[in-house]
Amino acid sequence: MPKTRQWTIDGFGPKNLQISTTDISDPAGYNVLVKTEAVSLNYRDKMVMETGMGLDLKFPFVPVSDMAGIVEAVGPDVTRFRPGDRVISTFSPGRIEGKGLGDARNIPYKTLGGFYPGVLSEYVCFSEEWFVHAPLTLDTAEASTLPCAGLTAWFALIERGNLKAGDRVLVQGTGGVSLFGLQIAKAHGAEVFITSGSPEKQERVRALGADHVLGRDDWVERVYELTDDAGIDHILELAGGPAFGKSLQAIAVNGRISVIGVFEGFEISGPVAPLLLKSPTVQGISVGHRRALEDFVRAVDRVKLKPVIDRRYRFDEAREAFNHLNDGPFGKIVIEF
Amino acid sequence: MPKTRQWTIDGFGPKNLQISTTDISDPAGYNVLVKTEAVSLNYRDKMVMETGMGLDLKFPFVPVSDMAGIVEAVGPDVTRFRPGDRVISTFSPGRIEGKGLGDARNIPYKTLGGFYPGVLSEYVCFSEEWFVHAPLTLDTAEASTLPCAGLTAWFALIERGNLKAGDRVLVQGTGGVSLFGLQIAKAHGAEVFITSGSPEKQERVRALGADHVLGRDDWVERVYELTDDAGIDHILELAGGPAFGKSLQAIAVNGRISVIGVFEGFEISGPVAPLLLKSPTVQGISVGHRRALEDFVRAVDRVKLKPVIDRRYRFDEAREAFNHLNDGPFGKIVIEF
Amino acid sequence: MPKTRQWTIDGFGPKNLQISTTDISDPAGYNVLVKTEAVSLNYRDKMVMETGMGLDLKFPFVPVSDMAGIVEAVGPDVTRFRPGDRVISTFSPGRIEGKGLGDARNIPYKTLGGFYPGVLSEYVCFSEEWFVHAPLTLDTAEASTLPCAGLTAWFALIERGNLKAGDRVLVQGTGGVSLFGLQIAKAHGAEVFITSGSPEKQERVRALGADHVLGRDDWVERVYELTDDAGIDHILELAGGPAFGKSLQAIAVNGRISVIGVFEGFEISGPVAPLLLKSPTVQGISVGHRRALEDFVRAVDRVKLKPVIDRRYRFDEAREAFNHLNDGPFGKIVIEF
Amino acid sequence: MPKTRQWTIDGFGPKNLQISTTDISDPAGYNVLVKTEAVSLNYRDKMVMETGMGLDLKFPFVPVSDMAGIVEAVGPDVTRFRPGDRVISTFSPGRIEGKGLGDARNIPYKTLGGFYPGVLSEYVCFSEEWFVHAPLTLDTAEASTLPCAGLTAWFALIERGNLKAGDRVLVQGTGGVSLFGLQIAKAHGAEVFITSGSPEKQERVRALGADHVLGRDDWVERVYELTDDAGIDHILELAGGPAFGKSLQAIAVNGRISVIGVFEGFEISGPVAPLLLKSPTVQGISVGHRRALEDFVRAVDRVKLKPVIDRRYRFDEAREAFNHLNDGPFGKIVIEF
Repeated sequence: MPKTRQWTIDGFGPKNLQISTTDISDPAGYNVLVKTEAVSLNYRDKMVMETGMGLDLKFPFVPVSDMAGIVEAVGPDVTRFRPGDRVISTFSPGRIEGKGLGDARNIPYKTLGGFYPGVLSEYVCFSEEWFVHAPLTLDTAEASTLPCAGLTAWFALIERGNLKAGDRVLVQGTGGVSLFGLQIAKAHGAEVFITSGSPEKQERVRALGADHVLGRDDWVERVYELTDDAGIDHILELAGGPAFGKSLQAIAVNGRISVIGVFEGFEISGPVAPLLLKSPTVQGISVGHRRALEDFVRAVDRVKLKPVIDRRYRFDEAREAFNHLNDGPFGKIVIEF
Repeated sequence: MPKTRQWTIDGFGPKNLQISTTDISDPAGYNVLVKTEAVSLNYRDKMVMETGMGLDLKFPFVPVSDMAGIVEAVGPDVTRFRPGDRVISTFSPGRIEGKGLGDARNIPYKTLGGFYPGVLSEYVCFSEEWFVHAPLTLDTAEASTLPCAGLTAWFALIERGNLKAGDRVLVQGTGGVSLFGLQIAKAHGAEVFITSGSPEKQERVRALGADHVLGRDDWVERVYELTDDAGIDHILELAGGPAFGKSLQAIAVNGRISVIGVFEGFEISGPVAPLLLKSPTVQGISVGHRRALEDFVRAVDRVKLKPVIDRRYRFDEAREAFNHLNDGPFGKIVIEF
Repeated sequence: MPKTRQWTIDGFGPKNLQISTTDISDPAGYNVLVKTEAVSLNYRDKMVMETGMGLDLKFPFVPVSDMAGIVEAVGPDVTRFRPGDRVISTFSPGRIEGKGLGDARNIPYKTLGGFYPGVLSEYVCFSEEWFVHAPLTLDTAEASTLPCAGLTAWFALIERGNLKAGDRVLVQGTGGVSLFGLQIAKAHGAEVFITSGSPEKQERVRALGADHVLGRDDWVERVYELTDDAGIDHILELAGGPAFGKSLQAIAVNGRISVIGVFEGFEISGPVAPLLLKSPTVQGISVGHRRALEDFVRAVDRVKLKPVIDRRYRFDEAREAFNHLNDGPFGKIVIEF
Repeated sequence: MPKTRQWTIDGFGPKNLQISTTDISDPAGYNVLVKTEAVSLNYRDKMVMETGMGLDLKFPFVPVSDMAGIVEAVGPDVTRFRPGDRVISTFSPGRIEGKGLGDARNIPYKTLGGFYPGVLSEYVCFSEEWFVHAPLTLDTAEASTLPCAGLTAWFALIERGNLKAGDRVLVQGTGGVSLFGLQIAKAHGAEVFITSGSPEKQERVRALGADHVLGRDDWVERVYELTDDAGIDHILELAGGPAFGKSLQAIAVNGRISVIGVFEGFEISGPVAPLLLKSPTVQGISVGHRRALEDFVRAVDRVKLKPVIDRRYRFDEAREAFNHLNDGPFGKIVIEF
């Protein structure tokens, strides 16, 4: 049997990140063996590596949740894929449709590169249920950005948000989820507001179609001016903490705030008056289910949505790729194999 | 023209509350003249009297938002009512259906006994659009409790919440909205949890059909035990502040938290992790619209829901009635005329 | 290995129905072996037996789709059940939640007792995914009536219909789905109208809580009278054919008509004017998914819903039980083992 | 007081159509006086003129429901408009939001150019509630096409249909509603199928962005081929009659069919099997409410949607304009004043 190379950690902290090798075996039952061609990084991958995020990781642990690749071999019971199919992973294996997993006490957080092994490996062998077909119009690096960042924005705006043309959408910042939010909203005819503290990034989001580019702070009054006081129909809240209060101020009557983001140790707080009187829906978004990812893939192909990749690294540059996450990338960081 | 007696204030504070008289005139245009038979008090009526709640009140100001009475005369353009009809008021005049009033900057809070005059008056003369028919199965005192407290619970659980039999509902405390929540939830076959710090009130909610009566604090662990960790599908959050965090802990995956309550100066805060990972819908509730009140009236008659009145006062006991609000009444306080 | 007895057919037609024996083997993988204690019959079971309904049945074929029983043994991979658990079957194996199975061309009709083997057998051995826990408050015969007839009514009225107290519901006839519809609607505080041509059955539905009992024909005008012209909010359409036009006449503005029923060779037709002008939602109902069945089981236990069984037969009376279906039973026909 | 010219009929039939004059008076109360700049014709305008469609018309009757113009003067109570504002009419005056008008028995069909007077007049004087602001990006002729044909397509696809990018939409024919459906669907990133029997029109819809152009008959099999059997997510059914059966065959599992169209004397019919087994939602569409029209106007401006006008006639060419309706125009027929 051939060997495969993979990045693993034996203990928390990026200093432990190293390349190791493991065996590949033929996929059994419903499993498919997929040759990884690209993975994309989320800030959460870094946090899992550094702290475990309270998860019971098994060492050596392979980090990273999102990948795209080509099916190399399929188990005897597999019906959804054939060798040669291009696929992407799903962030929460087993979440097919409908309700999220887990219960009130045991918060469900069973993802690849966390509760389950990660994908920073030349080959992965998982159940066929854990994959969907890749879009036809993206290269593999682009396709690898959909399972977490892309689906999060889609799930918030479309699956839960029922966005329509003419709606006003505000996204905070220019990270992966934000830029997907911008692109998905534009593809549905929305008017998009985006916040950024960097003049250079402000220029780039304008080029991507943003209708209004706001500063990182004090954007509430500007929203009032630009909307004739109507406010924003849908806000992607990525800041959290007391900044949530700004979203409550800027939101339109009966609008929707999707709370997304890094959550380790964070609180959310804000004034109750606008929450009561404007009655927005506040919705926590935890990525999304497989059926929505399939819808999203279909939409990506139809509207020719091109994910924004800040930089592509090689397999042996994984450490540099992770470091880049600290610099606030513009869109996604990808590692190509 | 006859005179009518009414309670008014000339300045903030209950000490200014006094009986005065004013003229009654024939209703013009679309107006109807209604002889008030009962009003019910909300804690907010007291706050408006004491602080104005930031509203631009015109003195002499008649307080109180909720009433029931009998149509005495109708203007020439009126089509919805005839003399002799029993009616109840609507809390937010002009909010017929659909979206709430106002915009993002100018928070809509145009209610009777606030932006508009109140109803603690022997006669009121308003547009026909501001009333709905009273239920057939309630006496006037009971009917007067529906427009604010009753509709709030209905709007949260039914209009927005789509409650169904078997769902788990938790209501906090034993005030007017809470007991309506209990009764509405039971009428739809839900399993109802209620919190209370008073053994005597705990006994009384059991008699009203509560399935599980919990202490006022530390109820989260008890919820886990009673639901086999599944948690609560719908929570009526009446406490606010950091106590909101308990609701986030107790809520089921993809559950719903309706935030209700007094909002002057209050913040809401809680941990982000359960908001993200369990993805509940958090929904501010600002009473509701007229169509939902009509639905609720129809339901009250159908299921024979009897609002819980803690005590009925006479017209000249208005000061005592307001004082009672401070004692945490069990259900509603009503003034009968 | 022990033997099990089962009713099978070797060719279409009830005359071919006979008892045969087969082997029981230990459940492998994710399978569970369930000892059948009761099955309930649907008219569709009879049609499958007589005509195959276009399905590619494999002979000897075991008929009947709905059962309740006790888990006797579980395969090594099973996690959802343990021996001794009381379970009921699901009508459409593999339909967990969300969208129905199949595609536009290939109409999905993969059910037990059809595409899959049936349950008129002393033991069945299926995937654990094909079962849910039985309600605690029903005996096994009652529990066996939920998977098809019960879930159909629940799915129409609750999962898709969001029924609320005070809504007006009309069910046609007094078969299994209709009586479940009546009971589920009453459990949610609805006002229930039911049609029946038999004075004796009219008496019995009154005893079950029906608010208005109408004749089998000419019920539209009666609905107008009883509802002050408002019409019916939700109709369970079980007749089909041109009778569908009556439902279009009786439906309220923006109401909902759930089309249910035997469909072999039938058309549906009606006038377009009320469909356009009252804009009802017309919804075909094909039983429902497993998550909804679990919700329904929880509701049955909570509201103590008792399915109506017209008559219970013994295992060796299967032929008589099937014949009874022709007589228009009042509720369900059950075979106890 | 000045005079205004208008087209009127004194009896049914286009032969009675003639220009007459009437007085203009200052608008009272909540009325606004609007100088008509353009009206657009719907086939229904012609039917009302020819048969009355069962409505109790008052002669002389001014036909046509849809107009755009400029506010000339406002009554003393008007707050929504000022002189000089460009406005369009609403099709169903008084339907602001939420439920449709009327009840089950009395089918609501209170529209301009029907129950209410029409707009084929140089001036109209109606309540301010009957108008909305015109889009900024359309000329007046284009704006006049939104209230009926445009809103119908928007209401079906967006307000009720929650269309999203990647969804498959099929529209039948190339009349006004169909081309709006095509444009609205494309603006939301959908994949659009359109049927037409004319090679020349097929060419033109391709230029408008249609992804797939099908023949007028036998399009079901072609849909299966083009969608890999998945079928169509949302069909705008404009044919009615037994052709509805085709839509039931082509619809995807859990898809949506919006029934739209001329309804005088028509039936709808189709096979029950796909209605049950694929469980589509069938939804009658009767134009829509004012809030949705305001949403649509906002979307038109945002996505720069340009209504398709087949031909513009002058005021004195009204007869020729009506005749054109018989020829199956490509998009809308407009009369400019």
